[in-house]
Amino acid sequence: MYVLGVDPGVARCGYALLSRSAGSIEVHEAGVIRTEGTTALPRRLLEIFESLREIMALYTLDVMVVERVVFKTNAKSAMAVGQALGAAFMAAESSSIPVAQVSSNEMKLTLVGDGSAEKWQLQAMVQRLLGTEQSIRPPDVVDAIGLAFCFLSASETVREGWRLS
Amino acid sequence: MYVLGVDPGVARCGYALLSRSAGSIEVHEAGVIRTEGTTALPRRLLEIFESLREIMALYTLDVMVVERVVFKTNAKSAMAVGQALGAAFMAAESSSIPVAQVSSNEMKLTLVGDGSAEKWQLQAMVQRLLGTEQSIRPPDVVDAIGLAFCFLSASETVREGWRLS
Repeated sequence: MYVLGVDPGVARCGYALLSRSAGSIEVHEAGVIRTEGTTALPRRLLEIFESLREIMALYTLDVMVVERVVFKTNAKSAMAVGQALGAAFMAAESSSIPVAQVSSNEMKLTLVGDGSAEKWQLQAMVQRLLGTEQSIRPPDVVDAIGLAFCFLSASETVREGWRLS
Repeated sequence: MYVLGVDPGVARCGYALLSRSAGSIEVHEAGVIRTEGTTALPRRLLEIFESLREIMALYTLDVMVVERVVFKTNAKSAMAVGQALGAAFMAAESSSIPVAQVSSNEMKLTLVGDGSAEKWQLQAMVQRLLGTEQSIRPPDVVDAIGLAFCFLSASETVREGWRLS
């Protein structure tokens, strides 16, 4: 099973491609799509959409996993997240890939064993997962890996409840 | 000059195609793109994107005009507007059409002569513009016509300031 974790943002969109076979989870590729602040927003959104579609075309993906959004933020930042998340949704849909959502709590609980874990704890666990001492930057990549990992770790029963479609 | 006014929403996305030649403004086509609430969000966004692209391919458009967003709404509705607006931005960008923004105040001022005009006043002016006694529904269509009309009425100087790209 191949899963693409995506942490969408207009300036930085983290992504990570993980797979699971015979109980072992592997990270194949992880990175960040950056768009320039000086570029017009329509172009930035289309760049995210097209870059994600390119990544999606390279693998036979079973699902794209994004963070389930909690509306704590203000309207302005919610709007920006909505635009980047929408671009990711559209990239998945146009590539015929189902979308699943994982909450931040679920991700932290799975990786760190504590639903309210700090960012550095998540970072440390993802480093361990990758077998590296190096800090993984930017944090968007850590989140993308964490989301995909959480999805792959979960039981089929729980996973069913996450499906959007 | 051909202008597409768009009032984006996930459930209903109003659009209107207007042109201006020799000082006369004409409404060529106006309508609404509806998506079903029972359909998954990624599919709904892609439907908006694809429908707008189809409309854009029918005409040689100079610009797409959307309402400049004011962040009065709550985070949840801002997120939904962001997703629909993002889909419209991406449709324009992928069709090589520049995007302009007009504020609700500017539109009301241009059409009704009062920046804080009521919805029914806008409706009445748009009916007059179309030479019809019939109420124009849904309101998303009225707004799309109003946005395009406002853009076409404005002077070149003002218009320059609206460009996103």
